[in-house]
Amino acid sequence: MDRDRILLTPGPLTTTLRTKLAMLRDWGSWDADFNAVTARVRQRLLEIVHGQDSHVVVPLQGSGTFSVEAAVATVTPRDAHILVPDNGAYCKRAGKLSQMMGRRVTLLPVAEDEPISAAAVEACLTADPSLTHVILIHCETGTGVENPLKDIAALCERHGKGLIVDAMSSFAALPIDARSTRFDALIAASGKCLEGVPGMGFVFIRKAVLDGCAGHSHSLAMDLHDQWAYMEKTGQWRFTPPTHVVAALDEAITQFVEEGGQPARLARYQANGRALVDGMAALGFKVFLRPQVQAPIIYTFHAPGHAAYDFKRFYAGAKARGFMLYPGKLTQVETFRVGCIGAIGPNEMRQAVLAVSETLGEMGIASGAPAL
Amino acid sequence: MDRDRILLTPGPLTTTLRTKLAMLRDWGSWDADFNAVTARVRQRLLEIVHGQDSHVVVPLQGSGTFSVEAAVATVTPRDAHILVPDNGAYCKRAGKLSQMMGRRVTLLPVAEDEPISAAAVEACLTADPSLTHVILIHCETGTGVENPLKDIAALCERHGKGLIVDAMSSFAALPIDARSTRFDALIAASGKCLEGVPGMGFVFIRKAVLDGCAGHSHSLAMDLHDQWAYMEKTGQWRFTPPTHVVAALDEAITQFVEEGGQPARLARYQANGRALVDGMAALGFKVFLRPQVQAPIIYTFHAPGHAAYDFKRFYAGAKARGFMLYPGKLTQVETFRVGCIGAIGPNEMRQAVLAVSETLGEMGIASGAPAL
Repeated sequence: MDRDRILLTPGPLTTTLRTKLAMLRDWGSWDADFNAVTARVRQRLLEIVHGQDSHVVVPLQGSGTFSVEAAVATVTPRDAHILVPDNGAYCKRAGKLSQMMGRRVTLLPVAEDEPISAAAVEACLTADPSLTHVILIHCETGTGVENPLKDIAALCERHGKGLIVDAMSSFAALPIDARSTRFDALIAASGKCLEGVPGMGFVFIRKAVLDGCAGHSHSLAMDLHDQWAYMEKTGQWRFTPPTHVVAALDEAITQFVEEGGQPARLARYQANGRALVDGMAALGFKVFLRPQVQAPIIYTFHAPGHAAYDFKRFYAGAKARGFMLYPGKLTQVETFRVGCIGAIGPNEMRQAVLAVSETLGEMGIASGAPAL
Repeated sequence: MDRDRILLTPGPLTTTLRTKLAMLRDWGSWDADFNAVTARVRQRLLEIVHGQDSHVVVPLQGSGTFSVEAAVATVTPRDAHILVPDNGAYCKRAGKLSQMMGRRVTLLPVAEDEPISAAAVEACLTADPSLTHVILIHCETGTGVENPLKDIAALCERHGKGLIVDAMSSFAALPIDARSTRFDALIAASGKCLEGVPGMGFVFIRKAVLDGCAGHSHSLAMDLHDQWAYMEKTGQWRFTPPTHVVAALDEAITQFVEEGGQPARLARYQANGRALVDGMAALGFKVFLRPQVQAPIIYTFHAPGHAAYDFKRFYAGAKARGFMLYPGKLTQVETFRVGCIGAIGPNEMRQAVLAVSETLGEMGIASGAPAL
């Protein structure tokens, strides 16, 4: 049947019809009506992290990675030395984009199935006083592991280092409180746990560092200080905003608030995760991470050990039944991933497990258990 | 009445309902179905400029300016020396973003109401052999003037200089033929004359220079060579694409083809322009540019000379009647602008003139004639 498939991916994800319907209107990007939408979105984003007193938020056109690059370009001076603790693909990407723009970068390698250790980060900061900033990926969607934001923020504050947090896939689901967790910049995007459509990111910048950010950026498009200053002065975006995406985000945030905000969203995603993991375990599948370090955002599963397993066929079988899985991103182990975020609940997760079960049957695979 | 207003702005502009309805679906950005949409869009974009043999096209997330910056970052080496003939705001912006990324830039000032002279550009290239590239804004929407793309392309070819063309507001309306007009890069965006929604740009890059572009960019997000290489290998965008915007562009291009392609679109915009200019002239208004240099995209009008004129009130009056005008961008003369692009025809332009006429009456202004 021609029914919209459920996206079990970490963004773009399934959005509500109400969110999509908000795109059925054209907005003048210069007009006061649209400026009011932008202002309302910014105000409500700040409220989600309780950052009204301490931070500003600057939206930016493009994918989430554009906002990560813009945050680094804007917040760190050109002679910064950035520590990037690395337990996955998005850590490596943050390191790469920082290096490409000319910043000095030191990677701290961490096992992919372990969270970043605050003690190891502290040891680096102590050993090399030339380090000025840390970039932390809050939830590394390469595997789904949650990194200890609060601990790392506390030690960055203690050592007087700047902290840039990529909270792309955690923001609005995991608790983040700017009143007790100090960060210079924190980045997320429209098409993640706020359940908007993709096309823009946003960066929270600490007011105390904002003035010093002027002139850091090598890029006009990525200069968040300039974007912020223009927006404060005019209420408008510097360059054409993705008006329909902004309108959809505004509508998505309204639904987020109606649902009960971050605690309610987290509770739903946790219920989704439990339904997924319980159902998949009953089919023999094994989760890659131990439960203590697993964020309820995206789950990495070991591929079945059965000789008949082939990801492409497995993906096609689930897709034919209405569910889009996500490929694994690990190099050493064969895995696949299943997101549990988006406008879906435990019903959809159980239906997804049913689709996986039927697909295994079709492939002649009795159990999802991995090779020993 | 709560009716969608007509946007008389040079993008975002009024789109058809059919284009907006294409956004009522969530796509997996990794999935083959979405890759097919991307491939179809890219193929049809190439056909519009007859660039299938000579060029590739690389889409990029963000506003059109992001794509201009990415084109400069990708196509010019770090030691490039770029000539930017400057007859308006978008020329100045191209110069600024090139300078910020570290390229050497020479501006060639030209009067705002005159097109760039190929002879003046040639004199610069002859006088300073260190110049390696020229950036040309095809239609400078600061005023609406059309610059002589064919002549400048021919002389860049003759002098062995690279040419980067910002065709943001001309692409798909004015004729551009890559078979007879040589350019290294040409940039446009989704939310302009293709009548899609804003949120992505695209850059045509000449195959002969493409290989040499690897490693030029200081920015990961803006590296079009990397974006191209990844897309060729996987069919996917490197980072999350604005899936709904891409789907809307695909649908908009289908309607563009159905309408009769670039010649039909140009004919409609020319008819729009005539209806606008004739109607406004009857009200006493005077166009800023002489007709010979005016592109049928956006028209700059002198503000009425009457003492009661005030742009904010004028704008509000037209808006209340369903039409969104656009402020002027000139510093020396008081003007306002009216776009004639988007999913609108001469009917809408005559209705816009009626709205302007009624607004003048409301303001007690007998004629739109400028001060002498």
